[in-house]
Amino acid sequence: MSGEDHGRHMSSEEFRANGKALVDWIADYWDRVENLPVLSRVAPGEVRAALPAHPPERGEPFSAMMGDVDRVILPGLTHWQSPNFFAYFPSNISAPSVLGELLCAGLGVQGMLWATSPACTELETHVLDWMVEMMGLPAHFRSDSSGGGVIQDTASSAALCALVAARERAMDGAASRIGTDARLTVYVSTQTHSSVEKAARIAGIGTDRVRKIEVDADHAMIADRLRESIDRDRGAGLIPAFVCATVGTTSSTAIDPLPQIGTLCRERGVWLHVDAALAGSAAVCPEFRTSLAGLDLADSYCFNPHKWLLTNSDCDCMFVKDKAALVRSLSILPEYLRNHATESGAVIDYRDWQVQLGRRFRALKLWFVIRHYGVEGLRAHIREHVAMAREFADRIRESEDFELAAPVTLSLVCFRHRAGDDINRRLLEALNATGRIYLTHTVLDDRHMLRLAIGQTHTRPRHVHAAWDLVRETARRVA
Amino acid sequence: MSGEDHGRHMSSEEFRANGKALVDWIADYWDRVENLPVLSRVAPGEVRAALPAHPPERGEPFSAMMGDVDRVILPGLTHWQSPNFFAYFPSNISAPSVLGELLCAGLGVQGMLWATSPACTELETHVLDWMVEMMGLPAHFRSDSSGGGVIQDTASSAALCALVAARERAMDGAASRIGTDARLTVYVSTQTHSSVEKAARIAGIGTDRVRKIEVDADHAMIADRLRESIDRDRGAGLIPAFVCATVGTTSSTAIDPLPQIGTLCRERGVWLHVDAALAGSAAVCPEFRTSLAGLDLADSYCFNPHKWLLTNSDCDCMFVKDKAALVRSLSILPEYLRNHATESGAVIDYRDWQVQLGRRFRALKLWFVIRHYGVEGLRAHIREHVAMAREFADRIRESEDFELAAPVTLSLVCFRHRAGDDINRRLLEALNATGRIYLTHTVLDDRHMLRLAIGQTHTRPRHVHAAWDLVRETARRVA
Repeated sequence: MSGEDHGRHMSSEEFRANGKALVDWIADYWDRVENLPVLSRVAPGEVRAALPAHPPERGEPFSAMMGDVDRVILPGLTHWQSPNFFAYFPSNISAPSVLGELLCAGLGVQGMLWATSPACTELETHVLDWMVEMMGLPAHFRSDSSGGGVIQDTASSAALCALVAARERAMDGAASRIGTDARLTVYVSTQTHSSVEKAARIAGIGTDRVRKIEVDADHAMIADRLRESIDRDRGAGLIPAFVCATVGTTSSTAIDPLPQIGTLCRERGVWLHVDAALAGSAAVCPEFRTSLAGLDLADSYCFNPHKWLLTNSDCDCMFVKDKAALVRSLSILPEYLRNHATESGAVIDYRDWQVQLGRRFRALKLWFVIRHYGVEGLRAHIREHVAMAREFADRIRESEDFELAAPVTLSLVCFRHRAGDDINRRLLEALNATGRIYLTHTVLDDRHMLRLAIGQTHTRPRHVHAAWDLVRETARRVA
Repeated sequence: MSGEDHGRHMSSEEFRANGKALVDWIADYWDRVENLPVLSRVAPGEVRAALPAHPPERGEPFSAMMGDVDRVILPGLTHWQSPNFFAYFPSNISAPSVLGELLCAGLGVQGMLWATSPACTELETHVLDWMVEMMGLPAHFRSDSSGGGVIQDTASSAALCALVAARERAMDGAASRIGTDARLTVYVSTQTHSSVEKAARIAGIGTDRVRKIEVDADHAMIADRLRESIDRDRGAGLIPAFVCATVGTTSSTAIDPLPQIGTLCRERGVWLHVDAALAGSAAVCPEFRTSLAGLDLADSYCFNPHKWLLTNSDCDCMFVKDKAALVRSLSILPEYLRNHATESGAVIDYRDWQVQLGRRFRALKLWFVIRHYGVEGLRAHIREHVAMAREFADRIRESEDFELAAPVTLSLVCFRHRAGDDINRRLLEALNATGRIYLTHTVLDDRHMLRLAIGQTHTRPRHVHAAWDLVRETARRVA
C-alpha cells in the first residue's frame, strides 16, 4: 500500500475511507431492508442490460461502483436478510459474522495445510470441538478422539465427502485406485435433499443405485422399509454402502428415526451420514436435542451454521467418527506440498478432508459469532424463532380456511388453504407479488402447500403477525 | 438491528464502530505486514493451547476478540499478503476485492437460482463475458454462445465438474443414471496438479485409470506420448474420456502444447480441459497469450483470479464450450426449487454448474477489481511481476553458484544451488527460518530445487532484490 505502487492500488488512506463508508452503507442497508420488496422484481436480462457491455480500460473511483450497487444491483436482489424473508430455509447472518468474514478477507491466508497458516487450522479444530460440547454431540466427533470436525462450504460438499469415505470403506480401501464398484448402493428417503442424489451421481454411483425409501405420515423415513431395501440389495449381490438420514428435511423438517436407522446400519455394516443442515443448529438448546438421539450411531454428521446459527455463508460443520477413513479417501501428497509438519503426523491438513485444495479462514466468523452471543445468546435466538413458528402454527390451527400440512418440529410451518392446489398456487404468487413477504412452496403427498420458514436474524413477532394478516387478507382476495 | 432485539445482537451503532475499527486494523496490518516473520513460528498445538477449552456461556465484547486476534491468531499466521511471500503460488488480494467480499457478506444473498437473487447470477455472467474479452478467450466461452462462464471456488472443483461433464458425454448421457463405466480413462502429465487425480478418485474413476503422460525437457506434456497412450487404451477396449492440459504447471509453470493436444482430442473425441490456474491471469496482456493458442480446441478452461488477479480467494473462473453438457451432468430439480424463471428457460441457474447448491455473491469482488484497476491497471500489474521474475532469473544466470532449473515462462523462478540436493534443502530451511522471506521447494528430474513465485500484490523490485541478497548470503553460510 506504499507510495511505490504508483497510485494504481487503492492507498491505505483510500481503503480506510472507502471501507468505513461501506460499513455505514451496510448498516444503513440492514436498517432499511425490511422496507424493500423482499422478492426482486426484475425481469430476466434487466440487470445485465443496465451494465456496460465492455470492461473499463481505465480504473474507476469506488464511488462509481457503489453508485451502480444502488442503481443496478439492489433492485436485482431478493433480500435474504429481510425480516420478512420466510422462503426456502434462511441463510441468516449477523454483524459479528460479517466482521469475521471481513477479517478473513483482509488477512488473506490459505489454510490448505497446517503449515500454510497454523492458526487457520487450529482455530477451526478448536471451534468445532467447542461445537461438540455446545450441541451435545457424541464425544467421538471431537478431534482428540478417532474423529473430528471440519468446516465444509455446504452440506452438499459434506455429503459428497462422506459418500466418498463410505465408498472407500465399503471397498476395503480399493475405491481410490480402481474406481466405484458398480454394485454399490445408496439409501435416502423420498424427502432427502437432492444434494445426496447429486453426490451419488458425481461419485460415479448413479441414480439407478440410489434407493428412495418410503416415508411415514410425518414424512420421516420408515426404518423397516430401509431394512427391506438393504436386504433385498444384498440378496441380489449388491453392496449397500451409504445411508443418509435427515434431521429436518427440506420440505417439512421431518425427522428420520436415527436410533432405528443407526442400529440397522451398524448391523449391516453400512455408513450412516446424518444431514441436519437446518435443524442441527437447534441442538444448542438441550430441549431440542431429542431428534439427535441415536447420532452416536452415525459415521458422519453435518449442519449449517450458515442457515440458522447467525453465521455467513459458507459455513457447514461436518463431523466424522473415523477421520482416517475420510483422509484415506481424499489424500494425495505431491512433492510441492510436502513439509515437516505434515510428515510429523502431529497436525491436521484440512485439504485432505475436502474436495478442494485451497481453503479460506472460515473459522474466524464462527468464533466471532460464538463469542459475541455466548452459548446462552444462541439458545435464546433459536428459542425465539421456534416460539414464533409455534404461534403461527396456532393461528393456522384456529383458522377455518387453512390447515397445517406437516408437523411443526422446529421453525418451519407447512400449511395450505383448504380450497385446494390451485388456490394455494395463486395465493403464493399473490403474496410474493406484494413485496411484503416472501414464501416458497413444496408438494407433500401430491398436494401443493406453502412453507413459512422462520429464521432470519431480525425476524420478530410483529413480522410474523403481519405475515399472518397478509396471508389471510390475500387468501380472501384470491379465493 | 432494532431495539426490539433486546441488545443481544450487535446494534447498528456498535456495528458501525466495530466495523470501522476493523477496517483500520486491516489497513494497519497491510501497512506493517512486510515486517512480520513471513512463515509462522508456532509449534503444533500452540495456538489451541492459548484458547479457552470451553465456549463462553455469555457474550463477550468485540474488543476481546480482536485482542485475541492480536495475541493468539497473528503469531499463528503465515503471511500470504507479505510482499516477501514467494512460496507456492500467490493468493493475492487487493483493497477493492476485500471491499467486494465485505459487501457480499453484508448483503448475505444466496445465488443458487436466478430467482433467488437475479443480480447475483447476472453480474456473474456479465463479468465472465467481460473476462472472455479481456483475456482474448475463444468466443464460444461467452454466455451468448453454446457455452458460458461460472465462478467456482477453486480449480479443483472446476476440474471435478469438467470431468463429470466429460464422463456424461463419453457415456452418451448415461453416467448420471448408471454410474461410471469402469472402462473410462483420464490423461494428465506427470506435472499436472494433484487435484485432477483427486477429481478422478472422487468421480469414481480411480487412479489406476489415470495415465500420467511423460513430459519433455521443459516439463511440458509430450503430445505424441499422449496419442500413444490414448490409442493403446482404445485398442484395449477402454474409453478415453478426459485430458487435462496445463498452462503453467505448479512445479515450474511449464506450458503444455495446446494446439497438438487439442487437435488430438478432437480427432479422438476426448474432452479437453485446460487448467491455467495461475498463468491464465497473464492473458490480460496480449503478449502473454501465446501459451493459450489452441484454447479454441478445449471443451473447458479455468483460471484463478484468486491467485494472480488481485481477487480474494475463492474465485476460479471456469468456462465451458457446451453448457448443456455441464448442466445435464449436474442438474436435479426437486419440487421445492421449482420456479417460473427456471421453467421459462430464459435464465441461468448456476446451481446446475457446480457441486454445491448454495452460492455466495462472488462476482461482486471480481467486478470491483476490474473496475478499480481497469484492464490497463491489471496489465501493468502482471507485467511488473513478470519483469521482476526475469530480473531475478538474470541474477541466477549470472551467478556462479546457482543455476536455473526450469524455463522462466512467467513469474515463477525455479533455481538451485549447484552443490546438490542437500545444500538446497538446508538453504531453504535456513532462508525460511530468517522470517524475512518464504519460499517453497519442488523436485524436477529427481533433483531438489527452490521455487521463487512472484505475485503478491505489493511485491516491488526492492523485495526481490533483498530476497536475492538473502539467498546469496544464506547460501554462503550454509555451504
